[in-house]
Amino acid sequence: MRPSTVSVTLLLLIPLLSILPVSLPLPVSSARRSPRFLGDFAFSRPDPSRHRKASYQYETRYFQQRLDHFSFAELPSFQQRYLVGPSDHWARPAGPIFFYCGNEGDIEWFASNTGFVWEIAHLFSALVVFAEHRYYGESMPYGSKDRAYENAGSLSYLTTEQALADFAVLLTDLKRNLSAEDSPVVLFGGSYGGMMAAWMRLKYPHIAVGALASSAPILQFEDIVPPETFYDLVSSDFRRESVSCFKAIKESWNALEDQGQGRDNLVNLSRKFCLCRDLNNTTELSNWLSSAYSYLAMVDYPYPSDFLMPLPANPIKEVCTKIDSYPDGTDLLDRIFAGACTEMVMPMSSSQENSMFPAYNFSYAAYQDGCVQNYGVKPRPRWVTTEFGGHDIKTALNKFGSNIIFSNGLLDPWSGGSVLQNISESIIALVTELGAHHIDLRPSTDEDPDWLIEQRKSEISLIRGWIYDHYQEKVASFSM
Amino acid sequence: MRPSTVSVTLLLLIPLLSILPVSLPLPVSSARRSPRFLGDFAFSRPDPSRHRKASYQYETRYFQQRLDHFSFAELPSFQQRYLVGPSDHWARPAGPIFFYCGNEGDIEWFASNTGFVWEIAHLFSALVVFAEHRYYGESMPYGSKDRAYENAGSLSYLTTEQALADFAVLLTDLKRNLSAEDSPVVLFGGSYGGMMAAWMRLKYPHIAVGALASSAPILQFEDIVPPETFYDLVSSDFRRESVSCFKAIKESWNALEDQGQGRDNLVNLSRKFCLCRDLNNTTELSNWLSSAYSYLAMVDYPYPSDFLMPLPANPIKEVCTKIDSYPDGTDLLDRIFAGACTEMVMPMSSSQENSMFPAYNFSYAAYQDGCVQNYGVKPRPRWVTTEFGGHDIKTALNKFGSNIIFSNGLLDPWSGGSVLQNISESIIALVTELGAHHIDLRPSTDEDPDWLIEQRKSEISLIRGWIYDHYQEKVASFSM
Repeated sequence: MRPSTVSVTLLLLIPLLSILPVSLPLPVSSARRSPRFLGDFAFSRPDPSRHRKASYQYETRYFQQRLDHFSFAELPSFQQRYLVGPSDHWARPAGPIFFYCGNEGDIEWFASNTGFVWEIAHLFSALVVFAEHRYYGESMPYGSKDRAYENAGSLSYLTTEQALADFAVLLTDLKRNLSAEDSPVVLFGGSYGGMMAAWMRLKYPHIAVGALASSAPILQFEDIVPPETFYDLVSSDFRRESVSCFKAIKESWNALEDQGQGRDNLVNLSRKFCLCRDLNNTTELSNWLSSAYSYLAMVDYPYPSDFLMPLPANPIKEVCTKIDSYPDGTDLLDRIFAGACTEMVMPMSSSQENSMFPAYNFSYAAYQDGCVQNYGVKPRPRWVTTEFGGHDIKTALNKFGSNIIFSNGLLDPWSGGSVLQNISESIIALVTELGAHHIDLRPSTDEDPDWLIEQRKSEISLIRGWIYDHYQEKVASFSM
Repeated sequence: MRPSTVSVTLLLLIPLLSILPVSLPLPVSSARRSPRFLGDFAFSRPDPSRHRKASYQYETRYFQQRLDHFSFAELPSFQQRYLVGPSDHWARPAGPIFFYCGNEGDIEWFASNTGFVWEIAHLFSALVVFAEHRYYGESMPYGSKDRAYENAGSLSYLTTEQALADFAVLLTDLKRNLSAEDSPVVLFGGSYGGMMAAWMRLKYPHIAVGALASSAPILQFEDIVPPETFYDLVSSDFRRESVSCFKAIKESWNALEDQGQGRDNLVNLSRKFCLCRDLNNTTELSNWLSSAYSYLAMVDYPYPSDFLMPLPANPIKEVCTKIDSYPDGTDLLDRIFAGACTEMVMPMSSSQENSMFPAYNFSYAAYQDGCVQNYGVKPRPRWVTTEFGGHDIKTALNKFGSNIIFSNGLLDPWSGGSVLQNISESIIALVTELGAHHIDLRPSTDEDPDWLIEQRKSEISLIRGWIYDHYQEKVASFSM
């Protein structure tokens, strides 16, 4: 990925964060030198067909959805795309349905990168369904992406609640059409998709028997976790590899600003980083670097991956090795460039002490201004916690939820906003010290470390328990 | 109430049933001779001030609400009215809040008719809040009722999900402003309001500690209970008082149609029933009578009431006494008129065997046509069961719900669609054989029968348990 794609990335990303009620306390462009979170998968992705594994066969279908489930407004319906795996091994009519809650992106891409669901479906004789999130991929309201993203009005139905309702309606209809009303549905989701899978258990408990929510930062809202958590975790991932690398990055921000004063220096800086066009200011570059480091922390997998772009195993280690390989006295930005160009890609408030990022205090006012300016939309920071349970979400989950696995790797900076301890007997936290962003959902590989193999075994065993309980209850109700 | 008000009644009622996603399988005007349900309180009510008990003191406040909680659409906000009882006896800052989920009507009217909440608030040192339902009373979007009800577009945010979100947002904000985040909230509601109180426990479990859902027919959807249940229960209430009365009513429908053939006969029939204007057809009258009988069954209280109009104790008995008092050979419609004009007011499919109502098979197509024709709105019969859990709602409540009292009187025809058996240890059905429509929520009177006194004692005891548990948990979490 070329540095110059940062603007495209931002354009693709900001709709997600500012439009979705997932109003994480994120900085926006109006704040100078503020690190940016570029979203999980919210940037131009490789062609899904290139990544399609031969073993993942599915049929592409479309379901007519209401644009607004919560009003009677007469709006045009849209076609939601969903992928259905082969049904030949499905134990009809009451065999399990494994339902992936599509995140903010093309569903084919998630289908090809969520090998775990495909691989274990056979064990359970389950039917696999991947449902696309509205406003992504081919599931575009108003007929096209241009029309769907045209303005604040056309974008206004891009909310998590609507997407959850899409899933509930699709699943209900699908089960009815397949005469599979007694099928247990297991929900899967990673990152934002994992949040949706977990929320489905609270909002639509009658729809599914359980959810595997991988790397789902459901606590990353309002003031539940400190806003600097994310960047502190990214920083700690780098410090874990190399304290000198951590320090180099931390010092680079001032160097970058010093060396970027004035038109000529900006041109030089642009040359140094091999940019396709000249920088307008140093913020453009620091934003991009911040994002890239954060992304590396998310995908700091122990084996080479081709998730969003080809990456070596342990990419943070690779980057730090490059940065550290220069002798003393080498220009700091040369070192940074060497690291960044190993394999680069993306990233909230960062604290002065624990963070290698530029100091930044999240300003809600600036964030709001940015949203209004760019999209005509005013974010609602308290809505998510009101709708889904904020500070008390653990209590709510404990009392009213069941059958959720929150899986997290501690290398993943999102783990700080997720559930890292068991909440109840059936709401289980599976935490791996060396895991990155929803690594458990990825296809299995020969290089999988033992802890990952064990984690997946635990997940399979818990899912088996939910399905077993479901059938037991059905049998009990039939014999009553 | 004069028979001629039927058209007003219908106008006020139909918006409720066809616009709210409470899409009970009800007949509409397009179906000939079909009985109609006129909704719980959905007609012109007496001036609330006339009914205001001196003991119910409250302050009227307004809260700025979003019109659409589930989209980012830029719509005008509206002022939701809510009533707050005196706070002098409230045990600040963590004393309980008793929150009444306003139904389809003026909130002052519910406040004056829900004496139970006011009476027990003192026992608990609780703050009383009555929140008005959007599109009713003074809580009008677009500034006025005329504008709010202008067309399908302006009406389209009149949905239960939006109203539940209003309550959640109002309560969250209220608690924050009162620094009462640790206050346990107990929800109250009767009829549709009771349904909302129960649904709040499923959709917003983090907002309140429990709900008293009185006469809340949450099972009266899709094909969960047979559509004829309601009218069969009304009929059984009449038969219970007098078999001859039941038979007279059952036979009157044909008599009514026979005697209303042609213009002249319609004029005569209009005279017989003292109507202010001439009938256009017999359906107008049979609709009104059906509604009236059904309403009597709902408010068949054992003492005189002034709920929607002055009524004697046991009004069905009164009506049947009149109908039965005529000697053999008296014109059937004279007898019906005598009964109807004792005290008349208002009613679904009715079965030929158990029902005294004209045979009617619910036609979804006709119902839908009526909604589209009258309001430009297409009902969604499966949405409520998808959103709130349909056939499995008992399972969902059992597994995910807690702390709900479903109180029902078996005389109330709505009891057929409600929860009449305990669902779990904390989801309790309190059923009284002789109770009518949410009689437990009404102010206590000297004539209250023992079973009603006992029922209220049980409710108080259960509510005390919820609040006690809440404080126990808070203490436990503080000492951790």
